[in-house]
Amino acid sequence: MAVQISASARLSDEGARFFRAPYFSVLTTLGKDGTPHSSMIWVRRDGDDLLMVTVRGRQKWRDMTRDPRATLLAHDPEDPYHYVEIRGTVTMTEEGGAALMNELCLAYTGKPWEPDPAQGPRVVVRLTPSKVVEANVPR
Amino acid sequence: MAVQISASARLSDEGARFFRAPYFSVLTTLGKDGTPHSSMIWVRRDGDDLLMVTVRGRQKWRDMTRDPRATLLAHDPEDPYHYVEIRGTVTMTEEGGAALMNELCLAYTGKPWEPDPAQGPRVVVRLTPSKVVEANVPR
Repeated sequence: MAVQISASARLSDEGARFFRAPYFSVLTTLGKDGTPHSSMIWVRRDGDDLLMVTVRGRQKWRDMTRDPRATLLAHDPEDPYHYVEIRGTVTMTEEGGAALMNELCLAYTGKPWEPDPAQGPRVVVRLTPSKVVEANVPR
Repeated sequence: MAVQISASARLSDEGARFFRAPYFSVLTTLGKDGTPHSSMIWVRRDGDDLLMVTVRGRQKWRDMTRDPRATLLAHDPEDPYHYVEIRGTVTMTEEGGAALMNELCLAYTGKPWEPDPAQGPRVVVRLTPSKVVEANVPR
């Protein structure tokens, strides 16, 4: 049995299925020395782009401020070898950060977001795909 | 509520819980230009190290042959914001590749591995941690 892998420049509706609540994605950014850093993150699609939230000053914010390249992976929890990876570059803005955080919090937890004044401002992270890899590995 | 993040140089027994069947990890390697590449992968622990299998000639094999830096993330499927990331460097050898593939196949699918002669030889990927990040994000 061969591994089925397809690559394209755009995210299809089929490929987008798991980039939304309640599914978590894995975001990987690059550290100062180019080392990859991964973390679980909430996400929603916006047309061809993916939207996430981070906090100004955090590791992933520092990484993406320095180098906008990132990759985002989502998988089918019932069949984890069926997954989609979106490689691309990000842009970040604080505009709309609190609103998107609240929207994602409602979608993922069912509850509105409760801002913590001790934390920095929320930042909208917009990932624009340059390559989409969909894999379906038979078992 | 603050995000709970701890970092250490070694993988604890608690942190290792999800680096094993039936849980899949996400492995991220670096492309020729330093772009991160992520994929789902089978894994098992071996002391402080993590063992995986790839195929000679595949993208991730080429990536790790060029640059041994990689990161591996596992999460609790019941609570995805509880996750552990292992950053480190890999060594690869074809010795024992088929045996480890069979072992992981049995653990993850319950069936022995059926080699496909059309594919290249299986390669043991050993990730030695340099930094372990355990995160538990309250919701």
